Amino acid sequence: MSYPEYFQGIGVVDKDNWTHPKHVSYAAKEFKECDVDIEIEACGVCGSDIHCASGDWGERRDKLVVGHEVIGRVIKLGPECHTGLKIGDRVGVGAQVASCLDCERCEHDNEPYCPKFVTTYNQAYPDGYISQGGYASHIRVHEHFVIPVPEKIPTHLAAPLLCGGITVYSPLVRGGCAPGKKVGIVGIGGIGHMGILFAKAMGAEVYAFSRHENKREDSMKLGADHYIATLEEEGWTEKYFNSLDVMILCASSLSQINLDDLIKVMKVEGKIISICVPENDEMMIVKPLGLLGVYVSNSLLGSRKELLELLHMVAEKDIKIWVEKLPVGEAGVSEAFIRMKKGDVRYRFTLTDFDKEFPKN
Amino acid sequence: MSYPEYFQGIGVVDKDNWTHPKHVSYAAKEFKECDVDIEIEACGVCGSDIHCASGDWGERRDKLVVGHEVIGRVIKLGPECHTGLKIGDRVGVGAQVASCLDCERCEHDNEPYCPKFVTTYNQAYPDGYISQGGYASHIRVHEHFVIPVPEKIPTHLAAPLLCGGITVYSPLVRGGCAPGKKVGIVGIGGIGHMGILFAKAMGAEVYAFSRHENKREDSMKLGADHYIATLEEEGWTEKYFNSLDVMILCASSLSQINLDDLIKVMKVEGKIISICVPENDEMMIVKPLGLLGVYVSNSLLGSRKELLELLHMVAEKDIKIWVEKLPVGEAGVSEAFIRMKKGDVRYRFTLTDFDKEFPKN
Repeated sequence: MSYPEYFQGIGVVDKDNWTHPKHVSYAAKEFKECDVDIEIEACGVCGSDIHCASGDWGERRDKLVVGHEVIGRVIKLGPECHTGLKIGDRVGVGAQVASCLDCERCEHDNEPYCPKFVTTYNQAYPDGYISQGGYASHIRVHEHFVIPVPEKIPTHLAAPLLCGGITVYSPLVRGGCAPGKKVGIVGIGGIGHMGILFAKAMGAEVYAFSRHENKREDSMKLGADHYIATLEEEGWTEKYFNSLDVMILCASSLSQINLDDLIKVMKVEGKIISICVPENDEMMIVKPLGLLGVYVSNSLLGSRKELLELLHMVAEKDIKIWVEKLPVGEAGVSEAFIRMKKGDVRYRFTLTDFDKEFPKN
Repeated sequence: MSYPEYFQGIGVVDKDNWTHPKHVSYAAKEFKECDVDIEIEACGVCGSDIHCASGDWGERRDKLVVGHEVIGRVIKLGPECHTGLKIGDRVGVGAQVASCLDCERCEHDNEPYCPKFVTTYNQAYPDGYISQGGYASHIRVHEHFVIPVPEKIPTHLAAPLLCGGITVYSPLVRGGCAPGKKVGIVGIGGIGHMGILFAKAMGAEVYAFSRHENKREDSMKLGADHYIATLEEEGWTEKYFNSLDVMILCASSLSQINLDDLIKVMKVEGKIISICVPENDEMMIVKPLGLLGVYVSNSLLGSRKELLELLHMVAEKDIKIWVEKLPVGEAGVSEAFIRMKKGDVRYRFTLTDFDKEFPKN
């Protein structure tokens, strides 16, 4: 039971014991004309992996393999692949593996907002196959969602860009982050730390917001110009009144965020964009009069076009995100799950050593 | 007790019987160097007048005179007035009578968002004087908030533009209403009916939304291209999925609105702007994942610059809003309050005959 019919992965087998996943084997999805087969070399560990593996977001498929920050090498190309990929190319796959590629949204670089969106794991394709992620030997994906990775970016630093990175880059771009703009990053964790690095690289003046003082030093090292400990600093809403053009909410839960206070530091027509995919019943609640003149939105991933731009920028400006490596395998994934759940990571894990866990046939 | 020290008005005297206001006399505010005295000829009746007179928005001043859609003639100009007004000019005053005129917001045509905003009635000026509105013989206002009215617009049709009109015009402009854009107007009442007229005049394709069928005929007469009865039409969220660039929520309460459904008809990066000033404890609540890619905001009035533009557009394109006249006085104001409270107006009242109720000395 091996490639090309079967893939190996580290999957959740016992749902009551999701922090101890097992080495599993599972059928690959049917190979289509535009598909690319990738032999995986590394995979980032995203907050979504924990939400999904733990059941926060509802039902899980059997032998669920998560992971949607995949880096690997192209080993097979369908006959209708036309984006220019070649066998052996180093490529990335993010959190989306399908969309209709035909609707108004897909045609305007909004494929993450296509109603036919399929997530990289735990969602059914139109043919019923339930997608499996990147803590695995291989992944099979439509070429539109396979992104060439510039040589200059080391593999373990490239992986987290595919979901975490694009998730904060896309709203920065769409919100208007640019030289001369003042940009807030709220929540300094895996995604927020990339937000500081990218906003700074894009030329903005960066305001880092976290609840306590403990992220100040890291935020300044990452390049923030200002740091606000919202639960410890008195009078920050007055001090920074009417300051920001764009604010990205990078927290994993909206319940940790006092949106009514954050709105006060925005300029009129400023944009607050959340990237939070909260638990099912969590709502976004604001006082209408607090929101006067300020826009609030929620963003999801980014387009292929934006991913290409992001990787280009990271290579060009030699941006180094902060990553801790863990070897893929039952022990490594378990450690990643447990430490991510506790927030014990600065600031992102990448699983590596795939050739040891999944030796070639 | 008469002008210039005292003004006459129709004010709420008995707070438990606010629908029966009385003819009252009250001290004018101190005349400042940039002030303009206006002899009032007409005043529109705005939903806010009812919210405030009835106590929905909290405490009311003694002898509260509401009204912030004022049209009248300039009868006195302070020595530091420099906007070019002359004695005898026909002018308008809206719902704002002061701001600092000095902060970043004021300097960038965002004076409605200045923290030193003073509303036309029931709010204290810095000197403690509590403002009084336009159901009155006179009003005394800083010249920045006094807008010349083009000759072509009849007085009774000009008045409602000063608050209701600008309230929907400003978010249309800021939201990007223009030829080729698809614009939704939600809630077809006093403000919504102007929204249809303006959006159409601005060249957009207009979608009118109301809960029931009863506003269809009027909406189409006003120029709407589409009408959606949200509680009566099956499947409208699918039919109009991904259609609109801009949507203005013109309802007076957010509790009447299913925001999660309305978001579905927006394009990615589309803007939903509410103009609602709801009761104190009403919140704006959305499912974060429903909001994917769509911006939500709340707008307040508009700038002097936008008011000048609006009046120019209405004159130039000969836009006729739908107005019913009522004579000012205890009976007329009482009728306006009672019928507005019931929603029995298509679509706006203007109080007239001020010379009869408030004869010149």
